[in-house]
Amino acid sequence: MIGIFYSGIGGLTEVRALRAARPDLSFVYLGDTARAPYGTKSPETIRRYAEDCADFLVSKGAKAVIIACNTASSLASGHLRARHPELPIFEVVGPAVRAALAASGTKRIGLIGTRATVGSGLYEKLLKAADPSVEVVARHAQLLIALVEEGWVDAPETASVVGKYVAPLREVSVDALILGCTHFPILKAKIAEAMGEGVALIDSAEAVVAEFRATLEADAAFEASLDRGGSASYFVTDPTPAFSAIGSAWLGAPIEVSKADIAS
Amino acid sequence: MIGIFYSGIGGLTEVRALRAARPDLSFVYLGDTARAPYGTKSPETIRRYAEDCADFLVSKGAKAVIIACNTASSLASGHLRARHPELPIFEVVGPAVRAALAASGTKRIGLIGTRATVGSGLYEKLLKAADPSVEVVARHAQLLIALVEEGWVDAPETASVVGKYVAPLREVSVDALILGCTHFPILKAKIAEAMGEGVALIDSAEAVVAEFRATLEADAAFEASLDRGGSASYFVTDPTPAFSAIGSAWLGAPIEVSKADIAS
Repeated sequence: MIGIFYSGIGGLTEVRALRAARPDLSFVYLGDTARAPYGTKSPETIRRYAEDCADFLVSKGAKAVIIACNTASSLASGHLRARHPELPIFEVVGPAVRAALAASGTKRIGLIGTRATVGSGLYEKLLKAADPSVEVVARHAQLLIALVEEGWVDAPETASVVGKYVAPLREVSVDALILGCTHFPILKAKIAEAMGEGVALIDSAEAVVAEFRATLEADAAFEASLDRGGSASYFVTDPTPAFSAIGSAWLGAPIEVSKADIAS
Repeated sequence: MIGIFYSGIGGLTEVRALRAARPDLSFVYLGDTARAPYGTKSPETIRRYAEDCADFLVSKGAKAVIIACNTASSLASGHLRARHPELPIFEVVGPAVRAALAASGTKRIGLIGTRATVGSGLYEKLLKAADPSVEVVARHAQLLIALVEEGWVDAPETASVVGKYVAPLREVSVDALILGCTHFPILKAKIAEAMGEGVALIDSAEAVVAEFRATLEADAAFEASLDRGGSASYFVTDPTPAFSAIGSAWLGAPIEVSKADIAS
């Protein structure tokens, strides 16, 4: 069983990508909707929530966990690896960092994310550890999350807000921009327009899926350890009709969503 | 002790108003920051959170509870009254309804609030129970919360978003508009401009404070039952430096904020 967690519904994009690639593998998804969003909470609280999520997935038989959320990846991946040393844990920051370094020629790299993700400094630390000559400009773009969640993707106000958020990144002429929040690829066209030509946009969700698939191919023992049967179960901490409806639409088939009984 | 709870920091505006009026009374405030916001969660989850908050305040000696949050007032005030029958519970919806009825001549009344508040239908039900001839037009204005929280109060994008949200209320010429979320009075000038002249804006936080003060004056036994000493304690479920800083600024004096150990 592969466990995937996210603060809300956004991680279903990773589920969709993985199921398309490997329909034979079994998944369990947890969306911590009762306590979402994570991006405005304190590091301690984010770690506690991530701990609850990982423990729940392990209790459901997960043999590997994908942290689909940038905020939880930035604040809690080290903590979860220490807590579950036997468990392969995949998170979005490392793969996005590697993809950005590969895409950038000038080594001026931009990051937009939640307040918590940018505040953690993890992206900057990993980029500089890989290449000390890299110049990183990181800005939170917190408002974009609400704009996406409210469906204002094509509104002129959203284009204007995007323009203001990315202005400092344009000024220093980054040539790669990490979209460090699962919501942001939904605004990819607007962000690309605001950044201008010649800037590679790095989708952190795509990056972790690519790295997970590469691991499956490279590590036969790991690949063999995962459950077959193609089952998929979906849990949330706060069941709402909206989650089932949007999730079914994204995944192209009706999904049954159950309540996860974790501390909340 | 008077207990006040809110999903985040917004209820401190009520604390400020009450402390200005009655500095001799003692308060305990709880902001459920670890699980905020409430406005996008399910009715069951909101009731469970409100229950935790009220229980915590009672454990701290509250002899009366003010639900400063529109979402919790709309979804959980009946539940909390059943759970604590001995406890005077003040909530924002009833007072705002009475203020709107008093202010409206045409009896066409508008409401903006969170998705959960509007979805609960409580405002509409109470308005029509008081006067069946009232016409109510209710619209969620969810995005305004993020705009206020991110400090975009004076941004042109915010004025534009406000304009779009209130357009259906303008169309039917309401003459009173209930600002059914504690964040919205911060945008009062923008909302007034978008609504045009001759529309009374009803501040639900002001309405509950006025009703609480009127009860203090009318009910000597209740007034006498409350603790004197003017103490004030502030609890949150997720302590962040931002809460202490903004809270101290709003209240005009440094506040000490403690972590509330409630289930989360």
